[in-house]
Amino acid sequence: MPKSYTLGEIAELVGGQVDGDARTRISGVSGIREARKGDITFVANDRYAPQIHETRASAVVVGERTPGNSKPMVRVRNPDQAFSKLVEVIGHACATARRPAAGVHPSAVLGRKVSLGKGVSIGPCVVVEDGVSVGDGTVLYPHVYVGHNTAIGRDCLIYPNVSIREHTRIGDRVIIHSGAAIGCDGFGFSTVKGVHHKIPQVGIVQIDDDVEIGACVTIDRARFDKTWIGRGTKIDNLVQIAHNVVIGPHCVVTAQCGIAGSSRLGSNVTVAGPAGIAGHIEVGDNVVIAGRAGVTKDVPARQVVSGLPAQPHAQELKLQALVRRLPEAAQHLEDLERRIQRLEQAATHARR
Amino acid sequence: MPKSYTLGEIAELVGGQVDGDARTRISGVSGIREARKGDITFVANDRYAPQIHETRASAVVVGERTPGNSKPMVRVRNPDQAFSKLVEVIGHACATARRPAAGVHPSAVLGRKVSLGKGVSIGPCVVVEDGVSVGDGTVLYPHVYVGHNTAIGRDCLIYPNVSIREHTRIGDRVIIHSGAAIGCDGFGFSTVKGVHHKIPQVGIVQIDDDVEIGACVTIDRARFDKTWIGRGTKIDNLVQIAHNVVIGPHCVVTAQCGIAGSSRLGSNVTVAGPAGIAGHIEVGDNVVIAGRAGVTKDVPARQVVSGLPAQPHAQELKLQALVRRLPEAAQHLEDLERRIQRLEQAATHARR
Amino acid sequence: MPKSYTLGEIAELVGGQVDGDARTRISGVSGIREARKGDITFVANDRYAPQIHETRASAVVVGERTPGNSKPMVRVRNPDQAFSKLVEVIGHACATARRPAAGVHPSAVLGRKVSLGKGVSIGPCVVVEDGVSVGDGTVLYPHVYVGHNTAIGRDCLIYPNVSIREHTRIGDRVIIHSGAAIGCDGFGFSTVKGVHHKIPQVGIVQIDDDVEIGACVTIDRARFDKTWIGRGTKIDNLVQIAHNVVIGPHCVVTAQCGIAGSSRLGSNVTVAGPAGIAGHIEVGDNVVIAGRAGVTKDVPARQVVSGLPAQPHAQELKLQALVRRLPEAAQHLEDLERRIQRLEQAATHARR
Repeated sequence: MPKSYTLGEIAELVGGQVDGDARTRISGVSGIREARKGDITFVANDRYAPQIHETRASAVVVGERTPGNSKPMVRVRNPDQAFSKLVEVIGHACATARRPAAGVHPSAVLGRKVSLGKGVSIGPCVVVEDGVSVGDGTVLYPHVYVGHNTAIGRDCLIYPNVSIREHTRIGDRVIIHSGAAIGCDGFGFSTVKGVHHKIPQVGIVQIDDDVEIGACVTIDRARFDKTWIGRGTKIDNLVQIAHNVVIGPHCVVTAQCGIAGSSRLGSNVTVAGPAGIAGHIEVGDNVVIAGRAGVTKDVPARQVVSGLPAQPHAQELKLQALVRRLPEAAQHLEDLERRIQRLEQAATHARR
Repeated sequence: MPKSYTLGEIAELVGGQVDGDARTRISGVSGIREARKGDITFVANDRYAPQIHETRASAVVVGERTPGNSKPMVRVRNPDQAFSKLVEVIGHACATARRPAAGVHPSAVLGRKVSLGKGVSIGPCVVVEDGVSVGDGTVLYPHVYVGHNTAIGRDCLIYPNVSIREHTRIGDRVIIHSGAAIGCDGFGFSTVKGVHHKIPQVGIVQIDDDVEIGACVTIDRARFDKTWIGRGTKIDNLVQIAHNVVIGPHCVVTAQCGIAGSSRLGSNVTVAGPAGIAGHIEVGDNVVIAGRAGVTKDVPARQVVSGLPAQPHAQELKLQALVRRLPEAAQHLEDLERRIQRLEQAATHARR
Repeated sequence: MPKSYTLGEIAELVGGQVDGDARTRISGVSGIREARKGDITFVANDRYAPQIHETRASAVVVGERTPGNSKPMVRVRNPDQAFSKLVEVIGHACATARRPAAGVHPSAVLGRKVSLGKGVSIGPCVVVEDGVSVGDGTVLYPHVYVGHNTAIGRDCLIYPNVSIREHTRIGDRVIIHSGAAIGCDGFGFSTVKGVHHKIPQVGIVQIDDDVEIGACVTIDRARFDKTWIGRGTKIDNLVQIAHNVVIGPHCVVTAQCGIAGSSRLGSNVTVAGPAGIAGHIEVGDNVVIAGRAGVTKDVPARQVVSGLPAQPHAQELKLQALVRRLPEAAQHLEDLERRIQRLEQAATHARR
């Protein structure tokens, strides 16, 4: 049974102002298109403001200056964040993740010298090799594999079908989504007369506290020493992190990016879209790498880069504008040629 | 023991015309390069017509106007489709998928309130959580994980090592290939003072009837409401579908494409090669997005777009042609400069 | 307890020359940044030579002409290869992969007519279907799935959560990393009136000796006949290989590349970065395809190609240089216009 709230109560909850009837009753949260009567929805981007007139929602969370008042609204500084709070508080009856019970399922297979903290949940068909430690409250979902001597911190969620190879170091509150492969061999070969000989990859992967790693992400173990993902960094699905890469704290790497061997990112770096970073590159703190960029040389701190090869974004924009104007430039060239011809003919004429 | 057919029987089977000896005996199907005596092969693209002279096949399925008649041929309107029919009928002794037997393997782990239809096959080490329903005739291959309250329709094939998180809705005759991760958390964070806080992803994934999903595809659950794959849509390997994306019916998305959060595709859209679609984009019905395109704004119905950023294909082709002709343009510019110089010198000379 | 070596012993081991004190004692190997006193490290790329002064390592393996001698050095022809040898010999106490014991874990599920060679290791929760053969010394890690009638050679390493579908042929000493999906259905549909009908994919995948396949790689089974990866070829993570692709021996395909249906690569081809190859393309021996290239037509042997669409690298470089110089070209165009204007004004003036 969903509890219901007045819009006034909701405004108080998120620290916003009611614009309209504060007594409007709200019993659910929803997206603007899918909302029904009784729901509250939100507009984080004013581009979607026209949809306020069309939604079936009873109220809308908006920014302080979002236009329109055809619906009761709650005005806040950050609609995205406010709405997230509402999602948590009002809930969404049909789709909350349920925490698996603590304990080791009888079908799980644990090696020797495995140390499990309090409240750990080891699901069916999990395989944990010798010498692994798992901190308090961590959940290993079904079909997770943990290689020998790996250490996993507390309150982690390791989702189904994740593979974590030997000697990996994982901090606290780390989330790893299904299908991710952590600690596989780095891609290193020594080619002699056209034949590729494997270079042993004997380093590890270290993942610090509060990191989240998306589905089917691959993070290779180092050739030696470590591949390292810093505290609080968030990595989206299908990202490739090669051996010996170091990603600093609080970075964001979105889906399908690739970072080649030994490159190092500072803190709070954003790598967007399917961007790529070549090997042995240094990227400074607070850099933003735009979607589809291909980074081929070092990027100093605080720069925004884009393009292929990546360059400062303002330069790339200028270049792109010139490329787009090539049809006019071609026309211009022809015009000039015509004018020169006329001048040449006039000169010839004059000489006669 | 392969049964054998005459070419006349085969022509009848596929509604085509024999061009050559209708009594030619056929006992197998094969690709044009690998074919042996007794095989029938096909040429769908006239580009490969010269290979008809070289193949060891005894006969070839070709288009109505494919040149050459060095081999007995069966002429049809659509060789691709006709050959597929032959593959099904004549078979290929060495590599047919075998349907696993119905029943629940003793090593599978089923939760409470799991409802299984008739003829369902649950393979070894499958884990099905509480409240899941599985329709008649569906196969869950080994190591599949199905989260709680997920509903799977009838006659689905869920291949090994697929992860399906809680509350997912899957229709009938859906195929999901190995390694796919369905319903993982969307990538949503609220950044406060450089620290990324997770936004709960409490929506679901809905996959309609007759959808096929490739290996290692990731389809994230919605922030709220649903990420939705429409009826009959086919998705190739390693594709990323972000939270709240809606893909209409009968679309085709080929390998390694990525579709960012909240974008919506109409029906019969084709997304080719490793194309990308940014977030919050609307793509109309029957649009074709060319390989490697990067779609950054809405695309109206029936348009073909390509390029980075994507634009109507004809414009992009014109632009690419101008880029390719930059060497000539640079030469042209130098020529004009030389002619201007000559005019300037003549003018100076005249003035003296 | 790590054994220690003199630098002289190490030089002998790798066939190099000592430059400095041959009695320097070495007890570990490490990367140049992470090295401690007693470690030996290496510089393979002279770009990193300045770090020799800063490392805490006691000695450095370098090339024959690498500058600097602030540290004891061992000079060799190929520092990369020499260092790999040292990694193997001196070891790295904390992170060596441990070979699982031979035998079949009781939780593994084996079908009928499964043939296992000597010393095979079948880990927990492995599922092997009917008619599979596994050669001597091969390891199937936990959660591996092997479909019916697949043959795996000797001394292979198949890592956790790999799926191998039916009728796959795998040679000797093949390594397949976690999450890879081998032999899933190729992406083939026949579209009739907007509805996509599945074309049966009844071919197989063949992987020859000494191939290595990265994590979350997808290699689809052929429509008929085979998708084929030649001897000694190395494939990095998240690569897509479509149905009926043939990759020759000793190729290297780095992370996130995609090769579309029926394309054929010769021997010793390198495909770098996230490059893509369209369908039905022929790529000759010893070709190099640069990162992010998009190959849309055949490439003759020994060519280096780059760009989108890919062209010979020298041409692409020239083109890219011209694109980069568009700002100057635009300026040049304006200058010429101004000079023409002046000539026109002078001509008008002269006529008066």
